[in-house]
Amino acid sequence: MSKLPLPPGSTIGILGGGQLGRMLALAAGRLGFDVAILEPEPGAPATRVAAHTVVGAYDDPQALEALSKLASVVTFEFENVPASSVEHLTALGVAVAPGARALAIAQDRVAEKTFLNEAGVATVAFAAADTAQAAQDAMASLGAPVLMKTRREGYDGKGQRWVEHAADAPAAFKAVGAKPVILEAPANFVRELSVIAARGRGGEIAVYPLAENHHEKGVLRRTYAPAKVTGETADQAERIAAKVLSGLDYVGVIGIELFELADGRLLVNEIAPRVHNTGHWTMDGCEVDQFEQHIRAVAGWPLGPTHAHSQVEMLNLLGEEADAWAKLAGEPETRVHLYGKRDAKPGRKMGHVNRLRPL
Amino acid sequence: MSKLPLPPGSTIGILGGGQLGRMLALAAGRLGFDVAILEPEPGAPATRVAAHTVVGAYDDPQALEALSKLASVVTFEFENVPASSVEHLTALGVAVAPGARALAIAQDRVAEKTFLNEAGVATVAFAAADTAQAAQDAMASLGAPVLMKTRREGYDGKGQRWVEHAADAPAAFKAVGAKPVILEAPANFVRELSVIAARGRGGEIAVYPLAENHHEKGVLRRTYAPAKVTGETADQAERIAAKVLSGLDYVGVIGIELFELADGRLLVNEIAPRVHNTGHWTMDGCEVDQFEQHIRAVAGWPLGPTHAHSQVEMLNLLGEEADAWAKLAGEPETRVHLYGKRDAKPGRKMGHVNRLRPL
Repeated sequence: MSKLPLPPGSTIGILGGGQLGRMLALAAGRLGFDVAILEPEPGAPATRVAAHTVVGAYDDPQALEALSKLASVVTFEFENVPASSVEHLTALGVAVAPGARALAIAQDRVAEKTFLNEAGVATVAFAAADTAQAAQDAMASLGAPVLMKTRREGYDGKGQRWVEHAADAPAAFKAVGAKPVILEAPANFVRELSVIAARGRGGEIAVYPLAENHHEKGVLRRTYAPAKVTGETADQAERIAAKVLSGLDYVGVIGIELFELADGRLLVNEIAPRVHNTGHWTMDGCEVDQFEQHIRAVAGWPLGPTHAHSQVEMLNLLGEEADAWAKLAGEPETRVHLYGKRDAKPGRKMGHVNRLRPL
Repeated sequence: MSKLPLPPGSTIGILGGGQLGRMLALAAGRLGFDVAILEPEPGAPATRVAAHTVVGAYDDPQALEALSKLASVVTFEFENVPASSVEHLTALGVAVAPGARALAIAQDRVAEKTFLNEAGVATVAFAAADTAQAAQDAMASLGAPVLMKTRREGYDGKGQRWVEHAADAPAAFKAVGAKPVILEAPANFVRELSVIAARGRGGEIAVYPLAENHHEKGVLRRTYAPAKVTGETADQAERIAAKVLSGLDYVGVIGIELFELADGRLLVNEIAPRVHNTGHWTMDGCEVDQFEQHIRAVAGWPLGPTHAHSQVEMLNLLGEEADAWAKLAGEPETRVHLYGKRDAKPGRKMGHVNRLRPL
């Protein structure tokens, strides 16, 4: 276990070499850190801005051992890091942040909602089901329709479907893979919001202004931030963030997706124990963005300020949309962020732009 | 010669692996570029955030050839790049920006001031001398005192000294190395200012607000930006920047050091054909900083906006001053930039901080 706060010149390990890992690495570089990426795919985006790369599976003991020799602390860019990898790194004497508990809860949608409710944070009503029959039975109490999701994995709308009648539950169960599922009552929300927050090694908490998010086909399309909300809504979000972060004894940045109901109440939709696409606006809207904030937290540094200095509209560039880079770069109000991905598959997140206006 | 504008995913070569190369590489990474560094010292700061490193001397033909195979365009972080290296790269079909003319002029203080005066830009009176006797003779017309500097090399106050009497000129000539020198009349300036400006591939020009600079022992200590100046002074600086950039058919960011006289006139002290320490404030005071601006220019992208959104005090962290990183990171108004240098020799530039206030 390294001494904290971690001095500049130290190496921070990151599991995952995608765009989130890349933006974390660039932020770490600004603070004088070296970065070591563990990633199965050679040449992935983050590896090209990192001092060290270990090519290997996330659960490959040799790769983890190589990473542990390079890095003083390790973090990750995605929540599906195997629990065994965190245990292995911890056994090798390397601190992993956010920790095993946050990962375990974020990897299981039933554990996640159970934790949230126990922490005093509201969610939609839900039930767990391990069989087709159990799923059908659960709808008797939950009502219809419900959103059926696999308990584990699935993102951007994958591995989930709406079930309109209890009698359709067994077919839906089969369609999502005949794996343990969660059934969620609908949230009759008026807006999707999110809050990006951070907790430091000493338990201090910093919360960014709320963001308003618009999805298309299950994928984030646009974020407007700071979202226009009442002071009461902002306070509610801060209370939620504090309960979640403290409840998980969390270290690092977390993304919390929220439903805003017509009566002003906020429900938590899901939590992502990492930097989050709905926080990309902070790169140009705040003095310390979510990536530097995460590096500060895992390195045991003081957290930075979170207020916005500009109004931002963040737009994801999906697939060939990124081909418009020259036009976008020519817009005076538009800041361009590209991830260095070679292959613009349809729908793939290739970059994003932040369009700025005065607050 | 690559097609411009250079698409993201291309590789930009940088001669020099110090902090300026590192901050250029981080900016290139944000825009989706890969970077290849040519640098004699393995593990230098920029190499640790770059996709590729070629370890070699700046004039090593093999190293230059290796760089030319990696990079579509090449730029540099310092002005003492050998002219032969630029010729070699150009012969290998790689565009180098800023070009050979800017380098030749910036490497020779006599050529520099001659160019400036011919471009209609005022400097102090000066004379060239290749011998001790010529130096003494020159003082007959220039008067005393004069500042004697070697025509080539020397920076941060090295290779220069004041000569109070013509009779002392031969001894001073010997003391600075018995090399060709320039003799400069004193500038009775009230302030040292600088202007950071950029010129794109199509000849478009973008100028940042003026900065006020404070040196200690010949080394930049603090920059205040935007400097408090009259509209006429700002216009004067813009005209100077335009004359210099157009006169050099320049591509990229340039740093122009200025003397402000009591009557409001600006004299050019020197030009640096690269990103410049007095432009570090733009990293947190502007939406597009000098590093991204330079990458945009050399890649043939549109230039970004240059207005300031905050008032900035930039402070260089020299030697052990960087050991205060934890304290500095805890100041809410302070943005910390560290260069990842291993060895905090006295006076070495280890990082800088930008302290922000609302405009």
